[in-house]
Amino acid sequence: MTKTALIVSAHSADFVWRCGGAIALHAANGYEVTVVCLSYGERGESAKLWKQAGMTLDKVKAGRRVEAENAAKALDVHDIQFFDLGDYPLEMTREAKDRLVDVMRAVQPSFMMTHSKYDPYNTDHMYVSQWTLECRAIAQAWGHNPGQKVLGAPQVYLFEPHQTEQMDWKPDVFLDITDVWDKKWAAIQAMEGQEHLWHYYRNVAENRANHFTRNSGGQSGGRPAKYAEGFQSIYPRTVDEL
Amino acid sequence: MTKTALIVSAHSADFVWRCGGAIALHAANGYEVTVVCLSYGERGESAKLWKQAGMTLDKVKAGRRVEAENAAKALDVHDIQFFDLGDYPLEMTREAKDRLVDVMRAVQPSFMMTHSKYDPYNTDHMYVSQWTLECRAIAQAWGHNPGQKVLGAPQVYLFEPHQTEQMDWKPDVFLDITDVWDKKWAAIQAMEGQEHLWHYYRNVAENRANHFTRNSGGQSGGRPAKYAEGFQSIYPRTVDEL
Amino acid sequence: MTKTALIVSAHSADFVWRCGGAIALHAANGYEVTVVCLSYGERGESAKLWKQAGMTLDKVKAGRRVEAENAAKALDVHDIQFFDLGDYPLEMTREAKDRLVDVMRAVQPSFMMTHSKYDPYNTDHMYVSQWTLECRAIAQAWGHNPGQKVLGAPQVYLFEPHQTEQMDWKPDVFLDITDVWDKKWAAIQAMEGQEHLWHYYRNVAENRANHFTRNSGGQSGGRPAKYAEGFQSIYPRTVDEL
Amino acid sequence: MTKTALIVSAHSADFVWRCGGAIALHAANGYEVTVVCLSYGERGESAKLWKQAGMTLDKVKAGRRVEAENAAKALDVHDIQFFDLGDYPLEMTREAKDRLVDVMRAVQPSFMMTHSKYDPYNTDHMYVSQWTLECRAIAQAWGHNPGQKVLGAPQVYLFEPHQTEQMDWKPDVFLDITDVWDKKWAAIQAMEGQEHLWHYYRNVAENRANHFTRNSGGQSGGRPAKYAEGFQSIYPRTVDEL
Amino acid sequence: MTKTALIVSAHSADFVWRCGGAIALHAANGYEVTVVCLSYGERGESAKLWKQAGMTLDKVKAGRRVEAENAAKALDVHDIQFFDLGDYPLEMTREAKDRLVDVMRAVQPSFMMTHSKYDPYNTDHMYVSQWTLECRAIAQAWGHNPGQKVLGAPQVYLFEPHQTEQMDWKPDVFLDITDVWDKKWAAIQAMEGQEHLWHYYRNVAENRANHFTRNSGGQSGGRPAKYAEGFQSIYPRTVDEL
Amino acid sequence: MTKTALIVSAHSADFVWRCGGAIALHAANGYEVTVVCLSYGERGESAKLWKQAGMTLDKVKAGRRVEAENAAKALDVHDIQFFDLGDYPLEMTREAKDRLVDVMRAVQPSFMMTHSKYDPYNTDHMYVSQWTLECRAIAQAWGHNPGQKVLGAPQVYLFEPHQTEQMDWKPDVFLDITDVWDKKWAAIQAMEGQEHLWHYYRNVAENRANHFTRNSGGQSGGRPAKYAEGFQSIYPRTVDEL
Repeated sequence: MTKTALIVSAHSADFVWRCGGAIALHAANGYEVTVVCLSYGERGESAKLWKQAGMTLDKVKAGRRVEAENAAKALDVHDIQFFDLGDYPLEMTREAKDRLVDVMRAVQPSFMMTHSKYDPYNTDHMYVSQWTLECRAIAQAWGHNPGQKVLGAPQVYLFEPHQTEQMDWKPDVFLDITDVWDKKWAAIQAMEGQEHLWHYYRNVAENRANHFTRNSGGQSGGRPAKYAEGFQSIYPRTVDEL
Repeated sequence: MTKTALIVSAHSADFVWRCGGAIALHAANGYEVTVVCLSYGERGESAKLWKQAGMTLDKVKAGRRVEAENAAKALDVHDIQFFDLGDYPLEMTREAKDRLVDVMRAVQPSFMMTHSKYDPYNTDHMYVSQWTLECRAIAQAWGHNPGQKVLGAPQVYLFEPHQTEQMDWKPDVFLDITDVWDKKWAAIQAMEGQEHLWHYYRNVAENRANHFTRNSGGQSGGRPAKYAEGFQSIYPRTVDEL
Repeated sequence: MTKTALIVSAHSADFVWRCGGAIALHAANGYEVTVVCLSYGERGESAKLWKQAGMTLDKVKAGRRVEAENAAKALDVHDIQFFDLGDYPLEMTREAKDRLVDVMRAVQPSFMMTHSKYDPYNTDHMYVSQWTLECRAIAQAWGHNPGQKVLGAPQVYLFEPHQTEQMDWKPDVFLDITDVWDKKWAAIQAMEGQEHLWHYYRNVAENRANHFTRNSGGQSGGRPAKYAEGFQSIYPRTVDEL
Repeated sequence: MTKTALIVSAHSADFVWRCGGAIALHAANGYEVTVVCLSYGERGESAKLWKQAGMTLDKVKAGRRVEAENAAKALDVHDIQFFDLGDYPLEMTREAKDRLVDVMRAVQPSFMMTHSKYDPYNTDHMYVSQWTLECRAIAQAWGHNPGQKVLGAPQVYLFEPHQTEQMDWKPDVFLDITDVWDKKWAAIQAMEGQEHLWHYYRNVAENRANHFTRNSGGQSGGRPAKYAEGFQSIYPRTVDEL
Repeated sequence: MTKTALIVSAHSADFVWRCGGAIALHAANGYEVTVVCLSYGERGESAKLWKQAGMTLDKVKAGRRVEAENAAKALDVHDIQFFDLGDYPLEMTREAKDRLVDVMRAVQPSFMMTHSKYDPYNTDHMYVSQWTLECRAIAQAWGHNPGQKVLGAPQVYLFEPHQTEQMDWKPDVFLDITDVWDKKWAAIQAMEGQEHLWHYYRNVAENRANHFTRNSGGQSGGRPAKYAEGFQSIYPRTVDEL
Repeated sequence: MTKTALIVSAHSADFVWRCGGAIALHAANGYEVTVVCLSYGERGESAKLWKQAGMTLDKVKAGRRVEAENAAKALDVHDIQFFDLGDYPLEMTREAKDRLVDVMRAVQPSFMMTHSKYDPYNTDHMYVSQWTLECRAIAQAWGHNPGQKVLGAPQVYLFEPHQTEQMDWKPDVFLDITDVWDKKWAAIQAMEGQEHLWHYYRNVAENRANHFTRNSGGQSGGRPAKYAEGFQSIYPRTVDEL
């Protein structure tokens, strides 16, 4: 049976910086990864475009969509969906929640990913984090659209926000993305409107690799990694061996 | 190469209630599990014995040691060591720290287990938790007894304290111990002086199994488990797949 | 003057598992206890019913209502009200808030009870917790329905969630419910659709009784209790003796 | 260029007790300070008025407005705006958010002030705190009303709530308001309907001055201050010298 | 049987500011209250004395002792003991711990009081808080001085530190000390060397009374109190009625 | 009067990675900066040296001292002192505390810097953090070495640990060190034994500069910075303007 994963991204670029490596790596391992972009980030994350003359909301959205689709392609995303809910503020209607629930049930992901619980710089992010938990609960309810296959209990990983310490975000797992770094780097470069962040997120990936090595062995010889990503789990794991 | 684990127990019964299942399960899976009992709990965890006429400190220690050894046998512990440091208060001298460091280096554990970070009921417990981290750092230092093999970066799991919420303890992993429950139950019954806790810790194991099932699938059909244990990790994991 | 209490339960079974003992005990002590069930839990907490052929939302609700009424009877609940707001997601309209405010003012409770502040498994629960605080503030406002008797400052107790540690729930008071356990057990058994939870919550009650004893005296002879419940207070107490 | 500041006050008296000194001091230093009162606090903070015979909502609002305007005058407020959104519950519509965003962009404040993040006594307060962060993010979005000057990254200070410890509020900066105390005291006295709070907030100001002195030098001779206010910052500062 | 309480004060004046009202009130209610002053605060809390010419450590201690004894008299303290351990840093030897354990067992207090868990301004305070918990655990151990009556499980209240928010101190109970305020005020005035704190702690008592009233009823008519003290509990309470 | 600062570094390289920029910048601005290295990090932070044949403790210390002195020179440190207390574990005797107190009083720093409060990887770091607070309190005590000038109330900044999120470290101030980056880079390169960290800490400095820009203005045009450092304050600031 094909393994699957689901990424819930507030704006259309978030999945690239924050979990592009996880997407590409799991795709390489046979997962079908679905990405939901709740908005294009057309108002709040497209400053460069808006500084151009004659810009309109539709043009920004179209441009952002192309960038996101290119990035998704670079990362071997199985399916990318745009909910076009608007941003700043991103408002999640009941209808949009139902739609996200449908995606969760259709995908039946092994794990999901979304934003940090807290973000005083970007309230869209923290609301999306909470709505994702809400939709997960709905998707588990037997009485919601009876007959559909209900969702199990997939882990929800919070991917890395900008300025982690201000978001009370604490990673509890590091993933070695060295093997797929080229794909993540290509996806990052697809984000042409946010070139100022390319170098920043390469630094992040390099330094998380240092953390990977340190936590896998430290001075006695941890596993060398060149690029990594960190995630914070919401739920406990269930295992047969520690 | 044989896999190994190391348990650091403040008093001689702690390893039974708090991680007896993990010990037996990993032993069954080929791990050599070493248990260090820093004290016998002779003063503070032996009320029943002290209520007997003519009791002395040496008799209590001897009795506690026999119980612990019987429990260790029931759990297939590879090696159990008694540091006899005294309890209430348990004082960890520099010499005792060096001894624990030696054990860590000799065992080279895949993971270690000890007490919760905070315990306002039992300060021995929380001090031991901190000393274990301290000894782990010393054991990693190349300049400590140069020539010895230094310790890697094993995970430290904090096992379940009594009254978890008061200790700020939050499990992030549940282990299914159904297959070895008989061994844990036998070890529990070896603790003859604390019979009032037997039923309590069976309830704990049953309810943690409920949590195991819930987190492995919930209403859609999580994996049934009859007995489980929970642990809190100190360090992030390093993985190749989420 | 009759003493009163008010329970705000997201779904129609929550008041049974989480504070059935407190209800029965205070009823036995002369309190009139009112229970508000904001929803029947018809979609998200009735998996067993939905697995039956030919099930409809109305049948589930009707079944859940009967169970809740039977449980209320077993616990000597004075009044049980069903707001029928729907669940997963439970949405609290302004009208529903006004209705809950009316109940608060009519009941004038000595204390109120509701869900934990945080619950990543069940967002209905955590929203209800916050709405209860919101309605308490409205009920205290002199300008809301001027002429009605305003609410005082009743304590709000957060009752025990499932998987307490994941909800950041920390009890600061334990209540001995030994004398009314038979009533709680009967109420639990009235929850026919959730039989898998009966044993779980008996274990909880037994282990909370251990905590009761430990905190009332410990090894020197705390008060024996066979069943107890724990609660977390939101507000400070005001006293004349500690 | 004139320096500016913006205060977002849930009810019309909050700005007086909580940051009246900061307003008057910065006004004296050349700042133009704008105050937005989202509601008059007509329902929940006007008990004294509602106890009078024949009182109506309009009369209460009118009275509260006069008091607030008088206080604003005493504090040399540059502009005070009343959004009249209602209170208990205070509901922030999308339209109201847009209006607050417009104010933020028009004022271009050096810093903003609002309520604490958490307040279980007064949910209006904590919602306003969150909405202020949300509006700040919208005001920074280039695509929101393109052509308007976007907001920079002003600090948001959370002013002092009632019962600070219950609100998880922790001041990280103390401001000496000794020189403008007369103005704050006059503004406080303009709040005729809440005379029971006058003395309370004088005590607060005196004791915060003790904290000012202690943190500016302590026993070795901190700077004497007679009145002070404390604030909690949301964002890190950016400096050229510590 | 006489009820008793035990106060553990790092320096000889702490019990006055922080729980003088609780002492006097419980004494008036028939409690025998014992105060242990671990040091005189001779080095770190006697700046005024040290600024006098010809001052010596012995003179400071003697002066501090007289002040503390006078305050104790004013508060109807049953017994005050000075351990004279030195301050800044206050070092608690094993011998001193044993002595405090002896006092705990002799007094058999209904409740104990000590400092906040954290205090970055005054590390003596936070160490004493931890040592008190440690000694409580030793005093409960049946094997410590077998034959002595072991300690039960008395509540430990953390009394109010200076700058509460910086100490992560959160009161969960307010005590009305109006009836004994004259005694506390007399005790405060006995602290001649710290006159700069008299007014500060009267303000504290007045404002805590506001909190008492608010939490006992608020706008609907809480109980009026003129002076109060706040405390933070370490352990859960055990009750028969909420 | 010359302004001064004091850095308390557990091991001899910590001051370089964690606050080398702050040192060089303040030196450039006329501060005399004193660095205290409590140990050389000879056992636990010198893996590379210990892997060489014939290495001895004295050789390691000598090598580490030279590196630290070279780095200090590069950063224009005014005075660097080595306490040689040993590391892993670093033990702070009463005598060493007195020595550090003497330094604090002699330097009379405007601010001090030290390690994060918590560090489960490196307990030396977290103990040093606490001891620094303890010594600060002693240095403020008038009765400690009467006649010496007592310490005021300098801020204590916690500099950036490795793996910030695991240490519960949250920066509240960012310092632009672009102008002195060359000096910090030279100091970093003086740490020849830890070359694997050079690139890591350049990435940190670059990314903190991104945070500097974001917090000084964000998308509307924050101040460009190429290198920055972040710090967490222990105490509130006292100001005349926000």
